[in-house]
Amino acid sequence: MSIEQFINGAISPWMKEEGPDSDIVMSSRIRLARNFQKYPFPIIASEERMEEVLNFFKKEYNGQSFRDYKKFEVVEMNDLQPIEKRVLVEKHLISPHLTDHSKYSASLISQNEQVSIMINEEDHIRIQLYFPGFQLDRALEQASQLDDWLEEKVDYAFDENRGYLTSCPTNVGTGMRASVMMHLPALAMTQQINRMTPAINQLGLVVRGIYGEGSETVGNIFQISNQITLGKSEEDIVEDLHSVVRQLIDQERKARQVLMHRSGMQLEDRVFRSYGVLKHSRIIESKEAAKCLSDLRLGIDLGFIEHIPQTILNELMVLTQPGFLQQYAKESLSPSERDIRRASLIRERVQLENKE
Amino acid sequence: MSIEQFINGAISPWMKEEGPDSDIVMSSRIRLARNFQKYPFPIIASEERMEEVLNFFKKEYNGQSFRDYKKFEVVEMNDLQPIEKRVLVEKHLISPHLTDHSKYSASLISQNEQVSIMINEEDHIRIQLYFPGFQLDRALEQASQLDDWLEEKVDYAFDENRGYLTSCPTNVGTGMRASVMMHLPALAMTQQINRMTPAINQLGLVVRGIYGEGSETVGNIFQISNQITLGKSEEDIVEDLHSVVRQLIDQERKARQVLMHRSGMQLEDRVFRSYGVLKHSRIIESKEAAKCLSDLRLGIDLGFIEHIPQTILNELMVLTQPGFLQQYAKESLSPSERDIRRASLIRERVQLENKE
Repeated sequence: MSIEQFINGAISPWMKEEGPDSDIVMSSRIRLARNFQKYPFPIIASEERMEEVLNFFKKEYNGQSFRDYKKFEVVEMNDLQPIEKRVLVEKHLISPHLTDHSKYSASLISQNEQVSIMINEEDHIRIQLYFPGFQLDRALEQASQLDDWLEEKVDYAFDENRGYLTSCPTNVGTGMRASVMMHLPALAMTQQINRMTPAINQLGLVVRGIYGEGSETVGNIFQISNQITLGKSEEDIVEDLHSVVRQLIDQERKARQVLMHRSGMQLEDRVFRSYGVLKHSRIIESKEAAKCLSDLRLGIDLGFIEHIPQTILNELMVLTQPGFLQQYAKESLSPSERDIRRASLIRERVQLENKE
Repeated sequence: MSIEQFINGAISPWMKEEGPDSDIVMSSRIRLARNFQKYPFPIIASEERMEEVLNFFKKEYNGQSFRDYKKFEVVEMNDLQPIEKRVLVEKHLISPHLTDHSKYSASLISQNEQVSIMINEEDHIRIQLYFPGFQLDRALEQASQLDDWLEEKVDYAFDENRGYLTSCPTNVGTGMRASVMMHLPALAMTQQINRMTPAINQLGLVVRGIYGEGSETVGNIFQISNQITLGKSEEDIVEDLHSVVRQLIDQERKARQVLMHRSGMQLEDRVFRSYGVLKHSRIIESKEAAKCLSDLRLGIDLGFIEHIPQTILNELMVLTQPGFLQQYAKESLSPSERDIRRASLIRERVQLENKE
């Protein structure tokens, strides 16, 4: 398989598009947790019940389309090899939790991979919808329509006072987690993001790394999401998140201007050195790769580097994860073998754009 | 001035040639210290006497040729700007000592810059002769002929028992310093050179950095020379040095093979990362530049990098010195301005070979 084909297959179509403020916001996501009223929730359900839930989805939704989201396909965890599951996690299409939850776990994925509805994760249903750039309102609107579409056939567990009921009390109410993935290199370089995080937390929002809860921040990519799901409408939660993200965008832009003004040459040096590492190294750990990719992306945004698309950061952050590297190599690899493959994959990818 | 023209003017013609074992030995040099019998030695001479010495050379040798060494030219220190003197030092054509010694100091330099006869340095005459690669015997033979040529007109201070008399007692006897400049990256990486140095010293030889006495080792370049000038013939001194250099060459080649065998991928990674830094950095200090140039040169020697001539190390080690950078910039530069110029000059130079 050529690297072009591999990348084309590896990167979700929606991820290749640019959206509003996509110099800083990589993607916006809405996730809704829902459960069937008539079945025990997955954390206590018997295998038979879970199988019934799965079969319902296979029967009702496999091959279906809903508006822009064509040809949903049920992907069963039981049918997948460990590397294939890992790849879906790295593409953010499923959660790590789903992969080891039950043999009746699955995901209903739209053809363009913008929508992934996980089945028998912690809850029966977890609707996930992605948009490129900063498009939280649109994501919420579309997620609600998907929710309505499912509700035509599913009777949700819902309580007039509490709202949607979920396995974990932190999701009760709206069942919604809205999040944006942001690239904040200037706020990270100047240590400002560390000072901002406590204030963001006080607003009921959380700052995390690229692979969600418990994951470390790599490549200066931060996920900002709501902590609170109860006592506020979906619209209000999204509005609060929206306003904080808007401020972070402004702060990041200011910080970039200040850096350019005060130490433009140092910044250019840093960007080009990282570009040099990506183009030349033969062995690279994922952390260094993420750091260099972040610098490269910043260099593209600042105009130091032309002819390389902005989306290379999103793309290579995914492609250089262990699952993808092993899928590309078609074999399982030790960590040090992965460091070699990672370097070689990055070199090949950057060479495709070699018009400097 | 284009970078090609600048380099052509900056690099001595002999330096562009390859010689025997030039994968490891960059150059061989013979230096002979001589004095006039009839004048007090420069360290105690009056200005009038020094002027007489200088005038003698101007009258007798300016514009002359001797065998392969055409058109000697007297370059007087008094006529030079500080940057021009610095450039001659960086090209190893004169010593730092000559530049601030006397207003009657000069150097008689052959057109191809292979021979430089310093006048009124610590001694009246210091004949220096360079050959590319490992050619000590040939250098000694040619230096002796140059010595004889001068002796046709100069009555040397010579003592039957002590030999040639010199200002400093460490040069008495043969007045000869034979030295080779070696690139020993594998012996340096494996720390072997540090362990070998005491043994080399015990043989009456000295290991120094690229700019001689007191200079730090940069770019894994080591100068090996004789310490003792007395009690041995020129031929014996050169033979001893020759045999140690021969052993160092063998050890370096073995160390390279071992490194390739044990950690070839790490070595390749190191080489290409350094190549990436040279091709991309916007700010680079001379020490890092030397380290990266050493790695690049090793990569060329080991066949990792093709289409770049071996001589790029010798060339860029000289071109990126402060004097040359300022000559190229046509203005005096602060250290941080030099780091920027250095990076840009290296990038331009490497781009000339950009056929990777």
